[in-house]
Amino acid sequence: MKELSNLLGYRDTIRVLDCTMRDGGLVNGFGFTDEFVKALYQTNISAGVDCMELGYKADKMIFDQDKFGKWKFCNDDDIFAVIGDNADKKIKLAVMADVGRCNFREDIRPRSESAVDIIRVATYVNTIPECCLMIEDAKNKGYEVTCNIMAVATSQEADIKCALEMIAKTGVDVIYIVDSYGSLYPEQIARISDLYLEYGNKYGIEIGIHSHNNQQLAFANTIEACGDGVNWLDATYFGMGRGAGNCAMENLIAFLRNPKYRIYPVIKFIEEYMVPISSECKWGYDMQYLMTGILNQHPRTAIKFTADGRHDYTGFYKEIVAQD
Amino acid sequence: MKELSNLLGYRDTIRVLDCTMRDGGLVNGFGFTDEFVKALYQTNISAGVDCMELGYKADKMIFDQDKFGKWKFCNDDDIFAVIGDNADKKIKLAVMADVGRCNFREDIRPRSESAVDIIRVATYVNTIPECCLMIEDAKNKGYEVTCNIMAVATSQEADIKCALEMIAKTGVDVIYIVDSYGSLYPEQIARISDLYLEYGNKYGIEIGIHSHNNQQLAFANTIEACGDGVNWLDATYFGMGRGAGNCAMENLIAFLRNPKYRIYPVIKFIEEYMVPISSECKWGYDMQYLMTGILNQHPRTAIKFTADGRHDYTGFYKEIVAQD
Repeated sequence: MKELSNLLGYRDTIRVLDCTMRDGGLVNGFGFTDEFVKALYQTNISAGVDCMELGYKADKMIFDQDKFGKWKFCNDDDIFAVIGDNADKKIKLAVMADVGRCNFREDIRPRSESAVDIIRVATYVNTIPECCLMIEDAKNKGYEVTCNIMAVATSQEADIKCALEMIAKTGVDVIYIVDSYGSLYPEQIARISDLYLEYGNKYGIEIGIHSHNNQQLAFANTIEACGDGVNWLDATYFGMGRGAGNCAMENLIAFLRNPKYRIYPVIKFIEEYMVPISSECKWGYDMQYLMTGILNQHPRTAIKFTADGRHDYTGFYKEIVAQD
Repeated sequence: MKELSNLLGYRDTIRVLDCTMRDGGLVNGFGFTDEFVKALYQTNISAGVDCMELGYKADKMIFDQDKFGKWKFCNDDDIFAVIGDNADKKIKLAVMADVGRCNFREDIRPRSESAVDIIRVATYVNTIPECCLMIEDAKNKGYEVTCNIMAVATSQEADIKCALEMIAKTGVDVIYIVDSYGSLYPEQIARISDLYLEYGNKYGIEIGIHSHNNQQLAFANTIEACGDGVNWLDATYFGMGRGAGNCAMENLIAFLRNPKYRIYPVIKFIEEYMVPISSECKWGYDMQYLMTGILNQHPRTAIKFTADGRHDYTGFYKEIVAQD
């Protein structure tokens, strides 16, 4: 039963999180200009977006700072320099910390020394203990914490349940359903939402959704989950994100009926900033991403196909079917 | 309750109709080469597609034959010349006849003199009497007949019910839900499907869906309707269709689990024919189509915006909001 079935109303527990710089950063190597970041920050505030993710807290031992833009690392000083201290808190700032790819003890400073409000810990289902450690570390430092369990479509339901139980006990604030490969249909999202909400309701934790557009279902899956009771909704401007991209902010803001959300600033930012950036780097629905999506595979082969400038879809299909 | 909730099974009453040449013809002026048409016909057969729509039966009094490709008119002789008589009936051939824009008495010959199997009568809700006349004419000539009630999202429910009752009594075979403006969300599609299926079940008529991608929901709405019991599903290769385009055939064929549907021929046709045509004419999701979609407006202003090569989304938004 859809809670939003009266589409003219709204639910004020919904939170929209802009992850353009984080998931979109995977497309352009986190090479956003300071002007872009400042304009995006102001746009998010004008549009009523609740949270803005700035990028990753990537481990500098593993990733070379000279090879990526600064938003791969989200140093607190860089955030202060570009955005400021965000003291009026019209929007919450978030960063993502990947399990196994983040030197969290050193690189995540106490919240009192940072402009960041939310740490988003991203994990696969096989690294839950370290994930829990990172969640607790961030909670102890004063942050709100979300946990994004990636690639849910390739995990066993029993493992997911075990992971949800372990994560829920850390005191995490939000647990995310993540359709990393863009392989899920709305009906599957409904079932997964029910499962996550069972744990969310039991432990007083919000549930979120992060979707990919491999099958042109990123927005549809997001509003499906929203209708099922999921409150935290990820989106990116013009759908910018790895491979086929994400749920488009313009679709989501146009759908939500809470008057605090406003579409005009979104349209303006897309016209002024996203159209130009879309001519410099590629993302969005295309056949190679559809194919990895329907085969429930990581999009890395499709990303390489795109980067190589290939257009032989049939050749690619033969390769990935053979590989499956 | 979704009938397809077990996504691993299938329902053998489903029919896929390819309307690439008809809705896509609105993009390129019906200028498909004979080679394209022959390849599409063979592809549809290989992919297991059930019906192929060739174009319109447009009134030559109203439309100048010199200004459009031949598939705007679908003369029987042209069909015989390019496709042949389709005698082995591996696929059914369809044409669309618009109420008020088709000289049906003369231009639709008896089925025995044509390769066409299905007449698709397209109407707005305010022209049902002439629509019924056209349905009866086509039935009397031996055709299967569908009725496509356009722009359902702008019609009163009471009028829709009245129209369904009148159309159902003609002996029509299929009635289509048509989201002409791409304004509907899956939950609305579910409610409309229930309404149409009530009449379908009462009169033994199949229900179909034809969607547009203004909000990136064409595929999602199609499988929503399918899950609700709608059997006739329209799609186009690479989503080619007016404005934001339609439900993409590649998405739909990848979703359906009936082994008769095969994805590889679809991929091959897109690689060989749709990618080249997409560099010659424009369709697909873009901001201007999103805006007419969310405002539940005809896309003609957005189509003109595209044709004029404009990119000032904010200017366009101001124009159509003022107009609304």
